[in-house]
Amino acid sequence: MAANTFGSILQFTSFGESHGPAIGGVLDGLPPGLIIDYEFIKDQLKRRKPVFKQGGTSRREDDDIVWLSGIVEGKTTGAPLAFMMENKNYQSKDYDELKDVYRPSHADYTYEKKYGIRDYRGGGRSSARETATRVVAGSIAQSVLKTYGIEILSAVTQIGDVKASKSLAGITKDKMYHLKYGFLDDNQIDRIDHLIESLRQDNDTTGGVISCVIRNVPVGLGEPVYHKLHADLASAMMSINAVKGFEYGEGFKSAGQKGSEHNDAFVTKDNRIQTETNRSGGIQGGISNGEEILFQVAFKPVSSIGKKQRTTDKKGEEREIKITGQHDVCVVPRALPVVESMAAMVIADHLLWANVGKIS
Amino acid sequence: MAANTFGSILQFTSFGESHGPAIGGVLDGLPPGLIIDYEFIKDQLKRRKPVFKQGGTSRREDDDIVWLSGIVEGKTTGAPLAFMMENKNYQSKDYDELKDVYRPSHADYTYEKKYGIRDYRGGGRSSARETATRVVAGSIAQSVLKTYGIEILSAVTQIGDVKASKSLAGITKDKMYHLKYGFLDDNQIDRIDHLIESLRQDNDTTGGVISCVIRNVPVGLGEPVYHKLHADLASAMMSINAVKGFEYGEGFKSAGQKGSEHNDAFVTKDNRIQTETNRSGGIQGGISNGEEILFQVAFKPVSSIGKKQRTTDKKGEEREIKITGQHDVCVVPRALPVVESMAAMVIADHLLWANVGKIS
Amino acid sequence: MAANTFGSILQFTSFGESHGPAIGGVLDGLPPGLIIDYEFIKDQLKRRKPVFKQGGTSRREDDDIVWLSGIVEGKTTGAPLAFMMENKNYQSKDYDELKDVYRPSHADYTYEKKYGIRDYRGGGRSSARETATRVVAGSIAQSVLKTYGIEILSAVTQIGDVKASKSLAGITKDKMYHLKYGFLDDNQIDRIDHLIESLRQDNDTTGGVISCVIRNVPVGLGEPVYHKLHADLASAMMSINAVKGFEYGEGFKSAGQKGSEHNDAFVTKDNRIQTETNRSGGIQGGISNGEEILFQVAFKPVSSIGKKQRTTDKKGEEREIKITGQHDVCVVPRALPVVESMAAMVIADHLLWANVGKIS
Amino acid sequence: MAANTFGSILQFTSFGESHGPAIGGVLDGLPPGLIIDYEFIKDQLKRRKPVFKQGGTSRREDDDIVWLSGIVEGKTTGAPLAFMMENKNYQSKDYDELKDVYRPSHADYTYEKKYGIRDYRGGGRSSARETATRVVAGSIAQSVLKTYGIEILSAVTQIGDVKASKSLAGITKDKMYHLKYGFLDDNQIDRIDHLIESLRQDNDTTGGVISCVIRNVPVGLGEPVYHKLHADLASAMMSINAVKGFEYGEGFKSAGQKGSEHNDAFVTKDNRIQTETNRSGGIQGGISNGEEILFQVAFKPVSSIGKKQRTTDKKGEEREIKITGQHDVCVVPRALPVVESMAAMVIADHLLWANVGKIS
Repeated sequence: MAANTFGSILQFTSFGESHGPAIGGVLDGLPPGLIIDYEFIKDQLKRRKPVFKQGGTSRREDDDIVWLSGIVEGKTTGAPLAFMMENKNYQSKDYDELKDVYRPSHADYTYEKKYGIRDYRGGGRSSARETATRVVAGSIAQSVLKTYGIEILSAVTQIGDVKASKSLAGITKDKMYHLKYGFLDDNQIDRIDHLIESLRQDNDTTGGVISCVIRNVPVGLGEPVYHKLHADLASAMMSINAVKGFEYGEGFKSAGQKGSEHNDAFVTKDNRIQTETNRSGGIQGGISNGEEILFQVAFKPVSSIGKKQRTTDKKGEEREIKITGQHDVCVVPRALPVVESMAAMVIADHLLWANVGKIS
Repeated sequence: MAANTFGSILQFTSFGESHGPAIGGVLDGLPPGLIIDYEFIKDQLKRRKPVFKQGGTSRREDDDIVWLSGIVEGKTTGAPLAFMMENKNYQSKDYDELKDVYRPSHADYTYEKKYGIRDYRGGGRSSARETATRVVAGSIAQSVLKTYGIEILSAVTQIGDVKASKSLAGITKDKMYHLKYGFLDDNQIDRIDHLIESLRQDNDTTGGVISCVIRNVPVGLGEPVYHKLHADLASAMMSINAVKGFEYGEGFKSAGQKGSEHNDAFVTKDNRIQTETNRSGGIQGGISNGEEILFQVAFKPVSSIGKKQRTTDKKGEEREIKITGQHDVCVVPRALPVVESMAAMVIADHLLWANVGKIS
Repeated sequence: MAANTFGSILQFTSFGESHGPAIGGVLDGLPPGLIIDYEFIKDQLKRRKPVFKQGGTSRREDDDIVWLSGIVEGKTTGAPLAFMMENKNYQSKDYDELKDVYRPSHADYTYEKKYGIRDYRGGGRSSARETATRVVAGSIAQSVLKTYGIEILSAVTQIGDVKASKSLAGITKDKMYHLKYGFLDDNQIDRIDHLIESLRQDNDTTGGVISCVIRNVPVGLGEPVYHKLHADLASAMMSINAVKGFEYGEGFKSAGQKGSEHNDAFVTKDNRIQTETNRSGGIQGGISNGEEILFQVAFKPVSSIGKKQRTTDKKGEEREIKITGQHDVCVVPRALPVVESMAAMVIADHLLWANVGKIS
Repeated sequence: MAANTFGSILQFTSFGESHGPAIGGVLDGLPPGLIIDYEFIKDQLKRRKPVFKQGGTSRREDDDIVWLSGIVEGKTTGAPLAFMMENKNYQSKDYDELKDVYRPSHADYTYEKKYGIRDYRGGGRSSARETATRVVAGSIAQSVLKTYGIEILSAVTQIGDVKASKSLAGITKDKMYHLKYGFLDDNQIDRIDHLIESLRQDNDTTGGVISCVIRNVPVGLGEPVYHKLHADLASAMMSINAVKGFEYGEGFKSAGQKGSEHNDAFVTKDNRIQTETNRSGGIQGGISNGEEILFQVAFKPVSSIGKKQRTTDKKGEEREIKITGQHDVCVVPRALPVVESMAAMVIADHLLWANVGKIS
């Protein structure tokens, strides 16, 4: 079951709503003795801060982590690691006018029908605020990956109609952190600035695409049928707010390819078997083959727009709304650490899973 | 864990390899009293039969189902429903020459590294033969859906570079079953015939895209965070052999849209609240909103091509292979009942889940 | 997996160590709209307070609950309900002398061997302090039960060699709360007082037995094979610290009975089918039959005794220890709300499970 | 969920009813390369054959195993291992007269209320026939144990009022296999013969107790809170038909002990830390401590007695029945391989679990 739990071996259970006392989570299944990299966690949370706001100043989100259990002297103990982040000033009244109205393409309507109760003060569990807990958990998962030399890098490759004309090939961690807006292609920054400015003036928003690469994954991660490595990555990415599509390797493009164009020849290089090309995206038959894992994630535009929109209220009466407040014009750059964190949880889960079933 | 089990409430565990004695499965969590529609199951299995073979006659796959448990007088009992299909003539020697060679873009290499053992006589669990068990289980899941009036329809919308210029809007079950090659757009059949013939002569293969629509899904299916309805659909689709991408609603296209273009206005029609457009694809905040659920699945070209390919053997020595046998030129039409079956299992799972947590 | 999670549909994940910052838990799968009975929770926590201390004043355990999520205006929302209780003054130094020594029949040795790390300041996850989180979660589960009219009552029926000569038959909630030491048989209180006093003087401890009855459980709870209602109750009870045995109905006594002595005849009383006797203990074939569910739980004596004991240190060197501090002479009365809480979680889990798989 | 699945890492899903076409199971999570010991499986199934029948000749149960998947050349492949056993002659009419009547202390009434459907031809899933699948799965699990040098031995220590006056201490595998009726104490065989004969003449039945020892379990198996090793053993044993009680180590006796009588002193013997006594039964804080694991299981008398019994039919009308057929007078000796098999699955599960969460 486990509606709020992610993972098979390394299991993350998140809790909290945007307008309740706190958000947080419990990460269970971590190996004992793992060093917590507090600085890295803080840095990843910082990358999740708003980049393109609709208005001027930004709503203050407080991301001070309170560590509750599972850590002694900076190391994991093997016990469940729990943490929380308080929602400061969550008793706001900003949302009163939305009490009876369904915001278009939000979860207001579906939540109310599902639960009978809706916390109109915010999105409840559907709020993107929940993803902050994933960044904490995923950053700890990255510590597991580091012990294997695995690294996860991601960049924005599309914002609205502006597409990067580069790939992630050869990108370094250092370069990644210095990309403006996390966007892969420096030459397009002007176009993005214009796009965002124009959307801001129109009280409108836009979507985008994130590309991600995972390096140094050992051969053999992933299960052959229902927990294929890419199926778990897809499930992870589709669980992020606003995501509408996932593809790995050549993805949708491969639908138009011939077998002879798509297949990756095996070759021996540097004394080990590798593939000459990597159209498979590092996964074959659901199992990592040692090449770079490559995937892309499509985000829809932010639903909260300042423009006037038609909708209905609870009684089905027609209404018009403008959603005010400090919403994002484009949420995609903020989603980079979330994508990396969810990817890290999937890879860590399968790393630990790979030790299962072994006779030591 | 459960590497070979799919679903949270309605759980399907499949077993069997292409070249072992049998394939089959156990479907647990079915409500008692459900009528088994044997004809429908047979029909769906027939649709999984080869459409575009590389050679003339086709390898005979025997799909006679032996029902093992969970059914009394044609109805489910609430006990686990088990079934199997024997692999006739599975002791073939067709595969001997592939014993030491890794077929490009197959699971040979990754399986061998993961398990230490590889059943070179076939793909083991990675064989598409396993999907026959999903069609059986998914067709039974469709019986659950029928009690709610839910229907699932799918069609091929791309084969190689030939794309349908129609959408699934307004398609009926009857029309769907009469589509040649299951392809949505009649006007393109000539182009497909030419494409397939040309590929056949080149000993090559191609990929494609399947579009799927699910109708009459009640509002409220799906869990808000880690079992979003579309995340479970993505996981289901990505678990099908050769799938490289998944999108729902506007999918990747939404990355380039504005909020004002993408948002679906709520309106009151026919005395109930609906959305005027359906760019969301029937799911908002991870939960069904009562509109049609729409998604697309991208398939890579079949890896087994008759063309000469470079590869290595186990020792890393360079080799050349041609994969002979009755392989498919394009597997996409055969995948239609598999896509429908996996979708049916996801929807049935969430229908049953929706009853959980209720105080009756 | 889920080493720290209990339950199938209603899932409780606990976290926290006795000497870390906090203990707490996440309860997922609760129906929305359930009223939280804060007073009852507080009362149950009070019953978990020490009854028979070895020394005079008692170590202060702070059980102020901080509610973190899943509740709006005193009702559940369907989102995961999280809470925590801070460990005040947990930086104590009482345990320094135990740093290198394995206390007999404690978890010191096994923890150290399992994790490589041992938090010598306390029992870590093995501390009985963790059971406070179960009392919170189980008391909320009792609110689910109340909507069905189900009640859970328990009493101590043995302390050391003093056994109650009464059964739980006909006990009321009111009577239960007024039992001295929670002991079922008033006539034995003097004998208990003498026993405890004598053990206190000897710096020794003792075990005991708790009997529990669950009333008004509807027919049909429990799964027939691996989640038999009594198997889940057994697993729940055996997860409580110091428990060494579980039996239901006639339990171990039934081993010496004849079928004709043990079988419960079906009869029609008050217009419904019932059993004339209840040697089955309310469960037949793993499924509740509508009669009272009856079970018993055996507790070993507290391991922490003030008497001198032989043991070894980490290096295997022989050592002598006396465990000082405010430990219990007998922990059994304190365990009453823990037994009730774990039972409540099992019954609530199966109540919610019983709605699964239904076609509504 | 997984009502018909047992285990966390090594998962066994059983299927089949006593009067359907077949029973069988799927064992998932086995390490690849494990040798299947076909002879041992057959021997264990033979030990499950009836020992004390009420009538003369016995109903033939066919235990020919058909292996369906997961084995190549006598070794596991890492894929799910599936098998089945056909129910020969299962279309019997023996049960027609029981169609509308609830047999006392059987699962007839609870099944009918739970599922609305009852397969009156036999007990459906509640039939002890299902335990044959556990013996197959558990015997394969024993192959995992053997690679660690772990052995599981069990013996009957009580039948009716006849109790063994010996313990399992020092018993060997060879001796165990030569015990008459599997009963631990040779000196009591006469008393058992008389008891069984007298019950047979009275058309009555009796219960009993099985004691089990597990040797050479490494230190560190079991999880500290909700999957304590003894909690999983309890759950396993309570899932066996007719079991009413479970205790480990000193069990219920420890309720009457003092701490100073119960605690096991640590000592250094043979260059390793051990406990001087083993009242803990090999498990401390839920985790194995390297000593022998010792537990006992209580079985109620067989419910199917030939004696006249009062009961009701479906309409609640009073009825009298005599249950005819070849039922057991005492089922306990037959349960020995079932107890060993379930114990083997628990230990194998935790052995494989112990490898999880390790950074290799």
